[in-house]
Amino acid sequence: MNTDDTITALATPPGIGAINVIRVSGEESLRVVEKFFRGKEKLEKSSSHSIHYGKFVDENGETIDDVLVAVFRKPNSYTGEDSVEISTHGSPLISEKIIGVLIENGIRLAEPGEFTRRAFLNGKMDLAQAEAVADVINARSEASLRGARNQLDGILSGKIEELRQQLIDVSSLIELELDFAEEDLEFVSENETIEKIQSVVNVIEKLLDTFRFGRVIRDGVNVAIVGKPNVGKSSLLNYILKESRAIVSHIPGTTRDVIREEVSIDGILFRLYDTAGIRLTENDVEREGVLRSREAVKNSDLVIFLNDVITGFSIELYNEILQLTDSSRVIKVMNKIDLNRSPDGNGDAQISALTGEGVEKLFKIMKEKTVGINIFSERSAVVTNIRHFVALKKAKEYLLKAVETVKNGMSGEFVAVDLRNAESSLGEIIGTVATDDILNNIFDKFCIGK
Amino acid sequence: MNTDDTITALATPPGIGAINVIRVSGEESLRVVEKFFRGKEKLEKSSSHSIHYGKFVDENGETIDDVLVAVFRKPNSYTGEDSVEISTHGSPLISEKIIGVLIENGIRLAEPGEFTRRAFLNGKMDLAQAEAVADVINARSEASLRGARNQLDGILSGKIEELRQQLIDVSSLIELELDFAEEDLEFVSENETIEKIQSVVNVIEKLLDTFRFGRVIRDGVNVAIVGKPNVGKSSLLNYILKESRAIVSHIPGTTRDVIREEVSIDGILFRLYDTAGIRLTENDVEREGVLRSREAVKNSDLVIFLNDVITGFSIELYNEILQLTDSSRVIKVMNKIDLNRSPDGNGDAQISALTGEGVEKLFKIMKEKTVGINIFSERSAVVTNIRHFVALKKAKEYLLKAVETVKNGMSGEFVAVDLRNAESSLGEIIGTVATDDILNNIFDKFCIGK
Repeated sequence: MNTDDTITALATPPGIGAINVIRVSGEESLRVVEKFFRGKEKLEKSSSHSIHYGKFVDENGETIDDVLVAVFRKPNSYTGEDSVEISTHGSPLISEKIIGVLIENGIRLAEPGEFTRRAFLNGKMDLAQAEAVADVINARSEASLRGARNQLDGILSGKIEELRQQLIDVSSLIELELDFAEEDLEFVSENETIEKIQSVVNVIEKLLDTFRFGRVIRDGVNVAIVGKPNVGKSSLLNYILKESRAIVSHIPGTTRDVIREEVSIDGILFRLYDTAGIRLTENDVEREGVLRSREAVKNSDLVIFLNDVITGFSIELYNEILQLTDSSRVIKVMNKIDLNRSPDGNGDAQISALTGEGVEKLFKIMKEKTVGINIFSERSAVVTNIRHFVALKKAKEYLLKAVETVKNGMSGEFVAVDLRNAESSLGEIIGTVATDDILNNIFDKFCIGK
Repeated sequence: MNTDDTITALATPPGIGAINVIRVSGEESLRVVEKFFRGKEKLEKSSSHSIHYGKFVDENGETIDDVLVAVFRKPNSYTGEDSVEISTHGSPLISEKIIGVLIENGIRLAEPGEFTRRAFLNGKMDLAQAEAVADVINARSEASLRGARNQLDGILSGKIEELRQQLIDVSSLIELELDFAEEDLEFVSENETIEKIQSVVNVIEKLLDTFRFGRVIRDGVNVAIVGKPNVGKSSLLNYILKESRAIVSHIPGTTRDVIREEVSIDGILFRLYDTAGIRLTENDVEREGVLRSREAVKNSDLVIFLNDVITGFSIELYNEILQLTDSSRVIKVMNKIDLNRSPDGNGDAQISALTGEGVEKLFKIMKEKTVGINIFSERSAVVTNIRHFVALKKAKEYLLKAVETVKNGMSGEFVAVDLRNAESSLGEIIGTVATDDILNNIFDKFCIGK
């Protein structure tokens, strides 16, 4: 991918609004936009962070729209390059026409995430921060937004950088020792080396632990609601939708057999699947739906297993569920306690989907099963990204290998290699090591215009 | 509606994108945004049209997002008031939170169109221009965009203002005469007065004439395709969709019986309705669909009456159509000329929906029937708005009454009253006369944020 040319894209969400913003970035930004801008001041002479009112005209000099043009001069722009933002009336026709004119004049339509990619390449942010940009934009819940913001602010990057520095320090000492090998000097004892490496491993392990809730906080928690007919699955779903701040109401599933709703409970996104049934039957018509419901249970982070006080706890169905998922993921719930004030003790929560009694407790259990006590209100480093998780695991393995190497009394050279590998695994996270493949993988998931 | 307070709204289209923009306008804009902005420069001390990077924090000082804040100082802003535009990452969660903080601090959520309403009230644009803002944003075709742009640029307003001035000139002379009534001076002859009024009437009539195509250019042209089964209605629709630049493909109608597609032909938006049948039958199942098809024909600006060379021109169906609409709106088309090279001369266009032969000519006829030769490539005043049309008609009536009054030799006082009424009807268009009711009517149709 060429990073020397000038790129453009619509930066605001597609659709009709009061204003749309078109982004242009690269060396030619000012010169090309100037050609079609009719205002009081010359853009090329204007200072960074200034806004100019005028008309944007087409090749024939006909006005396309009144615009506000914002000028950003390198390196003080999002991308670190000369950049222009053109605000137009919020019609897709207008932005298409303006982008069309720009493209006719040597500016290229940006690839997905290319503005942020350039920001990374120009040192405006590290790779974990660049990834956080997409997470901030796509955040669907308070918790995911907070997690992404922390990452964008460099909390995770700072921690990773700290670990890298510690490894570099250990390496330096070992390499120093190698330099003076003939004199047989010892700068650091084997125990000290092991201790230092182990302390990095400990932090990495803590970070790895955060991934379990970091992931669900970022992506949301899949919850399957399973139960016999008439135990109140739909009533429960409706009650939750009413009580929680519904984010996206009622997204029909791929088929009529699984209905999906997204809700935010205490800032965490839960994706609730109302399953039809999970018991395989001879009936061909139902079979398809049952298979899909079983799939939903398998893919769930949590299963709400709903029973009611009338028919009691269904052991058979519970056993079926355990064939599909781990018992630690299942919340056993007894519904309709409004009908019978003394439910048997079976179940983690006793509720009435009708009156709402007990549902708060169910929410609490759902939250605890998801994130433990780790609701992150403070600005702590949390791993939310599988790429970071994998890199951390790799780093940990290299470090454990390094510890073994030291323990086995092998030459410092071998230890140094392990440490370098660990350090470069950590570097992958923040992008000190970044191949085009890694970058493509990351930025392909961005939207165009970011 | 209070116009002294400070208002805010999301200005960019709703949804996820690279950036969103929140608008704030009114006296408190800078002071309140400053409270939650953490940047290098103080906003309240910064100059107009400057941009500032920083963090927008909540009441607890926690970062909501990195933002760019653009400062506009009165009167050099869209509204004419002190204004701020806050660019955030394009997440609805973030804009909701920021707007939430602003509202907690005494800023009010803007009503639909309130920014533009303030722009009008502060003299930044006249009323016809304000209305054009909504038309620009909602333009669905090149032609409608051009029409709206012309109006926003003040082409219509200029013409109206010219006519108003001419009426004011005539009035002045008449009123001068009234002042000197005792001396029996004649400043202007009756014939001259009539001539001057008549010349205004002539221009108004020309403007009224533009409404026929002005309206369809703004709103699009409804075209019903009617024909017996198997004459090729769907084939024609498909061919047109393929050939034209489809704007919105396949919008299902209110029922399965009428299918609607929108296409842009030479910059004009045509809304094509594929009707099922228009002949009432005894069959109850079909009856509903037939009624809907008849309704579509009645509401159409044009009817494409499709026949084919195999079954020939259907006089019975043509007569049915003429019971629903005027013959001037009907285009008689003979299809399938690929099957028979010598179609009878019946029809305005001979086509093959299969090969596309003759369809260009059909397009030409559709265009001519819609806008005549008045495709406006130049910047001429066109009436696209029913409110303007009604006001012009009222003005014309007052002027004709004035002419009668003069002819009847009645006192100048009566003529003056008619002229004042005509002048104030014209004034309604550009808003020299504007009641709250008129304004509410206009701006309620805007989106929030504009």
